[in-house]
Amino acid sequence: MPRVTEEYRAARRGEIISAAGELFARNGFHATSMADIIAASGLSAGAVYRYFRSKEELIGAVAESALGTADEVFARLLEMDPAPSPAQAVTTMIDHLMTNVARETVEGVDLTRIALQVWAEAVRNPDLSARVDAAISRLRSRYSEVAQRWQAEGHLPAAADPAQVGAVMLGITQGFLVQNLLMPGTSIEGYSDGVRALLGEED
Amino acid sequence: MPRVTEEYRAARRGEIISAAGELFARNGFHATSMADIIAASGLSAGAVYRYFRSKEELIGAVAESALGTADEVFARLLEMDPAPSPAQAVTTMIDHLMTNVARETVEGVDLTRIALQVWAEAVRNPDLSARVDAAISRLRSRYSEVAQRWQAEGHLPAAADPAQVGAVMLGITQGFLVQNLLMPGTSIEGYSDGVRALLGEED
Repeated sequence: MPRVTEEYRAARRGEIISAAGELFARNGFHATSMADIIAASGLSAGAVYRYFRSKEELIGAVAESALGTADEVFARLLEMDPAPSPAQAVTTMIDHLMTNVARETVEGVDLTRIALQVWAEAVRNPDLSARVDAAISRLRSRYSEVAQRWQAEGHLPAAADPAQVGAVMLGITQGFLVQNLLMPGTSIEGYSDGVRALLGEED
Repeated sequence: MPRVTEEYRAARRGEIISAAGELFARNGFHATSMADIIAASGLSAGAVYRYFRSKEELIGAVAESALGTADEVFARLLEMDPAPSPAQAVTTMIDHLMTNVARETVEGVDLTRIALQVWAEAVRNPDLSARVDAAISRLRSRYSEVAQRWQAEGHLPAAADPAQVGAVMLGITQGFLVQNLLMPGTSIEGYSDGVRALLGEED
């Protein structure tokens, strides 16, 4: 038997997460079984269960993997000098979600659908709820860092709390995901123009 | 047999919607069956099916009923003179949702949870999807009317499209619902302060 390396484990884990993400996005969390995920991954049941004990653990890992790409966007935003405006940060993230996450799959399923599945499930599932709370908190605090830098450069009132401003920036992003998935006519550019106009940064 | 009046029909319909809303909020759309709804309504199966042929029709009606209360809030906002600011409109709606919808039930279930159930289900259910698209469009166009009045009073750039600004106002509201349900520490006042700060209307 070959020695199982860290790289091998990471690659198998990634394959399972990718197969699960595809199925959750296409059929929803409830209509997807561990058996479906095992079949789609091309691995044995034993192999899959060695990495993930449950659907909850898997949807947590799928969400975590999507969050990883958001972290890279925040890292770039926080390196910018001068600091990006809140509108610039939000529209950059929306653009990233649409360009990289929504179109990530070869099968043509929009992976941002998983966010809606995760939210709906998390309100009644304590295991998932803790993971989702942690994930949303992380996004919120990254947006808060953007707000804090913007405030430090004198653009937000000194009395404003960057954590609260960050929460609203995240809210604008979450609202876009909902509208984009549920209203076929939603336009990325239109919404981004709306963000700039509402936040007082008309081009 | 008594003559079935319009009032009688509306009352029965309201009882069924209320029983269904409670169950969807508590157990989710998938874990709720028509049999559960029939039992909770206290009416016969035949009576319930006379009003609603499916769970999809029922969740549509539940969403419609929540929207009815939002319409009243918009009617008040659009009567205000001078026009309310976007931040005032959004924070008024959030306050309404928390005061009236989240705490509407006697059983202690937050009815705003239904929004998350409806969104997750609508992406894969064409019947529900059309209803949800119509509902979100309606909210978006009411917010757009607020933005249009605000623009008419000279507060938004003349080049801004009120429909796009209205979409973002709705997005801020939807994002609040998500965060409030999934992050136990979310504060209505904190988020509302964040809205005012980000939209340049610090108190």
